[in-house]
Amino acid sequence: MELIGEHINGMFKDIREAIINKDPGPIEHWAKLQTEKGARWLDINTGPTVAKEDQPAVMEWLVKTAQAVSPLPCCLDSTNPEAIEAGLKVHRGQALINSTSADQWKMDIYFPLAVKYNAKLIGLTMNEQGVPKDAEARVALAMELVVNADMRGLPMQDLYIDPLALPANVAQDHAPEVIEAIRQIKVLADPPPKTTLGLSNVSQRCAERKLLNRTYLVMCMAAGLDSAIADVEDEMLVDAAAAVQVLLNKDIYCDAFLKTFRS
Amino acid sequence: MELIGEHINGMFKDIREAIINKDPGPIEHWAKLQTEKGARWLDINTGPTVAKEDQPAVMEWLVKTAQAVSPLPCCLDSTNPEAIEAGLKVHRGQALINSTSADQWKMDIYFPLAVKYNAKLIGLTMNEQGVPKDAEARVALAMELVVNADMRGLPMQDLYIDPLALPANVAQDHAPEVIEAIRQIKVLADPPPKTTLGLSNVSQRCAERKLLNRTYLVMCMAAGLDSAIADVEDEMLVDAAAAVQVLLNKDIYCDAFLKTFRS
Repeated sequence: MELIGEHINGMFKDIREAIINKDPGPIEHWAKLQTEKGARWLDINTGPTVAKEDQPAVMEWLVKTAQAVSPLPCCLDSTNPEAIEAGLKVHRGQALINSTSADQWKMDIYFPLAVKYNAKLIGLTMNEQGVPKDAEARVALAMELVVNADMRGLPMQDLYIDPLALPANVAQDHAPEVIEAIRQIKVLADPPPKTTLGLSNVSQRCAERKLLNRTYLVMCMAAGLDSAIADVEDEMLVDAAAAVQVLLNKDIYCDAFLKTFRS
Repeated sequence: MELIGEHINGMFKDIREAIINKDPGPIEHWAKLQTEKGARWLDINTGPTVAKEDQPAVMEWLVKTAQAVSPLPCCLDSTNPEAIEAGLKVHRGQALINSTSADQWKMDIYFPLAVKYNAKLIGLTMNEQGVPKDAEARVALAMELVVNADMRGLPMQDLYIDPLALPANVAQDHAPEVIEAIRQIKVLADPPPKTTLGLSNVSQRCAERKLLNRTYLVMCMAAGLDSAIADVEDEMLVDAAAAVQVLLNKDIYCDAFLKTFRS
């Protein structure tokens, strides 16, 4: 299970202010903290308030600042391909691009970009018609992502398909469909693509957010989820992920399995 | 999700002593407490120290004592069919017999007993050769239980198949096989049999027992687990079960879903 630390995102107040003030302190703090807490990747998102023309420079600064204090690779999270490419140019190691939709014109931008920079790529099971409700329609879009990976020469294990969790209080019927989609995506190709999820979405504006997040993570991991963008500062969430690894017989049981998972 | 409160069992010291001293206090305490905590059934087990000839009388006393203070039905848990029948004779409502194996000579005792008393029956996916390791062999034994239910006239929804969780520290490779067995058992017949699990077994002599129990419960529920014998005093376990019900779209989301689940 690869956890992607979600906090270096301009939607969080401390990061937004750090971007405005060009203050590396909060970026460094979260880069180090999320590394310690067991993250495998650092998500980097300029947030909704940075003007489009400034996004490439801000992305570049965030990547450089985070990687100056952490050995982790970054998950470059933007809807602006120019910001993604600015991040890729200065990134050390193999980056993860977040994300393309299953619209052909977007796939025609992002798959070549991933191949050019030897990056991994998250593909969302949505297109201009939106997010489909049922598992089958999500899997049909996943298949288009798989075909494009094949066509463009992106190794299948470098494609991360995100079947898109939605808030349980307004789109509750989607929740089990996403789990079923994960199960089916894992048998779409051999070797299969990876799967990922923006986990915290499932509990947006819900009560008991942390409980819902960690419960959904466990359910999705049991169906084959490989990765998630999540709050790695949430100790119980990371504990739950470690326990699943043991119970799926993926990590060997030892009494210190919680510590082992984080190292 | 039907939780079966595990505590009225002579393997626990307070219950063992209550049985020896014919003291109804601890039985009443646990019957009431487990009812409040969200149990759907009360497991009743005389424990390993009661002599075989005394088991019917002790079972009868335990059932009467528990049902005097709780509206819940009991899960009559014994390897002695005479103790089971003694419990059935005094039981109010529909009892759950725990359990038969998939050995034909045992099924020939327990299925008729269940039908005679209009009880439900737990069937274990094991026989005299032991507990098989892989999901397929567990499901083959489950099929024998399903066939016997059909043959003897036990309604399929009154058969609870237990694919037998084993401790993760010594039989870790069984853990994912049990989950897969649950998934397959739920499509063995239409209507399908129910599934259950002795949950605490998975963490016997492990570190982080409660974490492993609740994580495994969530994983198994995501695969179709209907019921579990569990520690319902463990608040976080019951919270996790409530969250799964919401995330499987089985219980409608409301901010008070933890409270609703228990009522």
